[in-house]
Amino acid sequence: MLDYIINKVFLGINVLRGWRGVREVLLKPPAARGRCRPHAMSAERYAVRRLPFARLGERDVAFFERLLPGRALTAQEEVKPFNVDWLKSVRGCSQLVLKPQTTAEVSQVLRYCYEKNLAVNPQGGNTGLVGGSVPVFDEIILSTALMNQVISFDKVSGILVCQAGCVLERLNEYVEEQGFIMPLDLGAKGSCHIGGNVATNAGGLRLLRYGSLRGTVLGLEVVLADGSVLDCLTSLRKDNTGYDLKQLFIGSEGTLGVITAVSILCPQKPKAVNVAFLGCQSFAKVLETFTTCRAMLGEILSAYEFMDEKCMELVERHLKLSSPVADSPFYVLIETSGSNSSHDEEKLNNFLEQAMASGLVTDGTVATDDKKIKRLWSLRERITEALTHEGYVYKYDISLPVGKLYDLVDDMRARLGQSAKNVVGYGHLGDGNLHLNITAESYSHSLLDAIEPFVYEWTARCSGSISAEHGLGFKKKQFIQYSKPRGAVVLMQQFKAMLDPKGILNPYKTLPSAPEWGLC
Amino acid sequence: MLDYIINKVFLGINVLRGWRGVREVLLKPPAARGRCRPHAMSAERYAVRRLPFARLGERDVAFFERLLPGRALTAQEEVKPFNVDWLKSVRGCSQLVLKPQTTAEVSQVLRYCYEKNLAVNPQGGNTGLVGGSVPVFDEIILSTALMNQVISFDKVSGILVCQAGCVLERLNEYVEEQGFIMPLDLGAKGSCHIGGNVATNAGGLRLLRYGSLRGTVLGLEVVLADGSVLDCLTSLRKDNTGYDLKQLFIGSEGTLGVITAVSILCPQKPKAVNVAFLGCQSFAKVLETFTTCRAMLGEILSAYEFMDEKCMELVERHLKLSSPVADSPFYVLIETSGSNSSHDEEKLNNFLEQAMASGLVTDGTVATDDKKIKRLWSLRERITEALTHEGYVYKYDISLPVGKLYDLVDDMRARLGQSAKNVVGYGHLGDGNLHLNITAESYSHSLLDAIEPFVYEWTARCSGSISAEHGLGFKKKQFIQYSKPRGAVVLMQQFKAMLDPKGILNPYKTLPSAPEWGLC
Repeated sequence: MLDYIINKVFLGINVLRGWRGVREVLLKPPAARGRCRPHAMSAERYAVRRLPFARLGERDVAFFERLLPGRALTAQEEVKPFNVDWLKSVRGCSQLVLKPQTTAEVSQVLRYCYEKNLAVNPQGGNTGLVGGSVPVFDEIILSTALMNQVISFDKVSGILVCQAGCVLERLNEYVEEQGFIMPLDLGAKGSCHIGGNVATNAGGLRLLRYGSLRGTVLGLEVVLADGSVLDCLTSLRKDNTGYDLKQLFIGSEGTLGVITAVSILCPQKPKAVNVAFLGCQSFAKVLETFTTCRAMLGEILSAYEFMDEKCMELVERHLKLSSPVADSPFYVLIETSGSNSSHDEEKLNNFLEQAMASGLVTDGTVATDDKKIKRLWSLRERITEALTHEGYVYKYDISLPVGKLYDLVDDMRARLGQSAKNVVGYGHLGDGNLHLNITAESYSHSLLDAIEPFVYEWTARCSGSISAEHGLGFKKKQFIQYSKPRGAVVLMQQFKAMLDPKGILNPYKTLPSAPEWGLC
Repeated sequence: MLDYIINKVFLGINVLRGWRGVREVLLKPPAARGRCRPHAMSAERYAVRRLPFARLGERDVAFFERLLPGRALTAQEEVKPFNVDWLKSVRGCSQLVLKPQTTAEVSQVLRYCYEKNLAVNPQGGNTGLVGGSVPVFDEIILSTALMNQVISFDKVSGILVCQAGCVLERLNEYVEEQGFIMPLDLGAKGSCHIGGNVATNAGGLRLLRYGSLRGTVLGLEVVLADGSVLDCLTSLRKDNTGYDLKQLFIGSEGTLGVITAVSILCPQKPKAVNVAFLGCQSFAKVLETFTTCRAMLGEILSAYEFMDEKCMELVERHLKLSSPVADSPFYVLIETSGSNSSHDEEKLNNFLEQAMASGLVTDGTVATDDKKIKRLWSLRERITEALTHEGYVYKYDISLPVGKLYDLVDDMRARLGQSAKNVVGYGHLGDGNLHLNITAESYSHSLLDAIEPFVYEWTARCSGSISAEHGLGFKKKQFIQYSKPRGAVVLMQQFKAMLDPKGILNPYKTLPSAPEWGLC
């Protein structure tokens, strides 16, 4: 007998406004402990069968309750929120949430699960956008929520060592007090865990300036599938002794090991921050503005974000924000961060004068005080939120050569015509990262079929990536071949088989299902 | 019958001044094709037995001559230089050097070697310092010297794609013409290949500013041991589709695959560069100067190097360079790179005024023109060369928490007393990277025994790395356990076994010999 689930809870869920309605649909209790009730029967592209893991029994629960007294949650109401993702787009039906506090506890949990063949879903702040952070079936949820201690911070080097469950915003506040900032920043900072950030190789708003986690993460402690602890938690900027094992766990979405602690290099807190918000008459001018400002702002440029007029319309309509500049087809947000405010302002003013004089930019405003800076940033950061008010949202997170970034939005708009309510583009232009979002009143198969695989084929033709920063998780794993050759995927599967031979860690995620796993 | 070699050609070789003398000792022709004559019988710490690979036969040579007409070198005089490392500290006795021009040729070479069980030594510019780039026995040398074509350069993004054999300095000149620079720079730039840089995860002089290759390398093409080609040669700043396989090959020293092409992100060429050369009265002041200048120079700081008075004495004595500042126990070289010369000079002057006024620095000079900048840099860059004039040099490349960096030099000096001629320290202080060098008139076992394992134990006690940027190669591989736990080394060996099951790629390097390999 097969259990199977179509995790395409896309199916109309998001058109129910508000959390309450969603819960009613999503969180029906499973028919019996450890058995999932399929709750949607179509959309075959997301269908997957339950693998033959053991089912959680009372003895198992008793073991975990002994191991983690008061920290092994089984009450339905307590477990519920861990089963649904932030977008409310997928849900699992786990019966058990474990909240270890130490690496030793994580190790004991995994050793037990490995022996008993119980599947495990590691979970940080549960803010992922591709369904990677919640169970697909009845996987035990291993939450890092109580692993939230700073282990050390070195004020000379700026190196922070902390447990995986520390919330990004809390860490940023902590290091800010000592004159540093975290090297990454993202919309979900108030909830996301640093371990989850590392497991998904989160990008975000500071990547343009401080680079990716592959450079800033100096060390990791990881518990492997069998419970053994891999200690690579060094705090050195340079270490060329053997293979850099930690890199394999960065961005592996919890499928190769559970990150329990992180060592990360924090940049100094900039003494001066400025934000300019500008209007451009075409995407070509957005690009030219980028090359001009990169040349003129140089080392102080810390963000170059863009959004189209449709995005502005939505944040104005749904969030009652107001645009600080005259209506334009495109808007650009430029941030500078530096060590000398008068130098930075002079550079920024020189750039703005040139951009206005040469017609690259037709209107703009500059903020130097915190409050106005936050207001300008919110226009860009809250687009995701504004979009959710429009009905169902099809989300794509694409890397492309920067010159082609908006062509995909234009092509998609032309292709979908009236069948989509909105086709909008925004994102981290400085990193070549487009967030393409398509909205409709409600989910429809035919619209999805018009978007996919077109969007992936288009991206592949430009040698782009179908997931720039969100990862593949559950929702995108079957599309990996659009961005990776077969040989690479086979090698990834070999790594997975080597590190997690029973496949208990975050199953059904990141890598495509092997044929023998019985794809529906 | 066992072949074995003590690659400890340390044994007095370096006391023979000059290349000619060294060659006479090192490059005696082996007794018979494919058979190595052991040329030193002691110093058991470097002893290793030849593994049971096939021996090169005439049919093999004929195959390679057909595959690479005119590019399969067998004449002794032609093969000689490829068998000896740049330091002239180790030598192999390969009979064959192959010079492919294309990835397809590398693939055919490896497919053949894999089938025939022939060991292969990938070689770039042969500038490594740990004996990783030359054969230990009769491994076939696979040189990237003719794989020197730029594939593409994108002027908007600054992304360079090129073959692995491109010389770093040539690449820098190429991208400089288009307003960019390579993200790394090192003393060996005139000879080293970018593929070798990536294979060894080279650090160098720009790491403080532009980060490590783990962040700047965007894609790799790699030929695996069996000849299959792994295409991860993307040119995207962000790509979270599956595991980041390329990371495993960065820093794996040619033991997991042969890098054939590299995609790398080049920063913009700075419009203004300044160098300050300063004298400090103590190492504590060197550290305080670092934290002060990091705060005041912020984003324009691009190098913070230090050297002790002994280093200065040696470059003055052997290279006839002259110190631009009054005699001091320590010297510091600070480089700024920025987009606005007047801003940068103002920042630098403010810092220098404060450093002088507060007594952190007692003397100093500043250079803004290219010629003087080069002169100041040469004081730091040519220390290695000056040291070779002193007799035999014991070289250590250590990462430590920056506050403890010079304690190791002091402790070593106290420990060795008169038995060493010089104990000097210099390096990339901003990255926590010390180059500890000990010289003596000639090599001696007893001095080595006084240094090792003391230096490794000292480093391990401070959670440092015994190889910050040089890698482990042949000379340091047996010491990996001082910087990596056993579990990590076992996992590395599993990766090696998975990717290169016959072990033909750069054998005897990076990972410690397994016991069953018959360590002497």
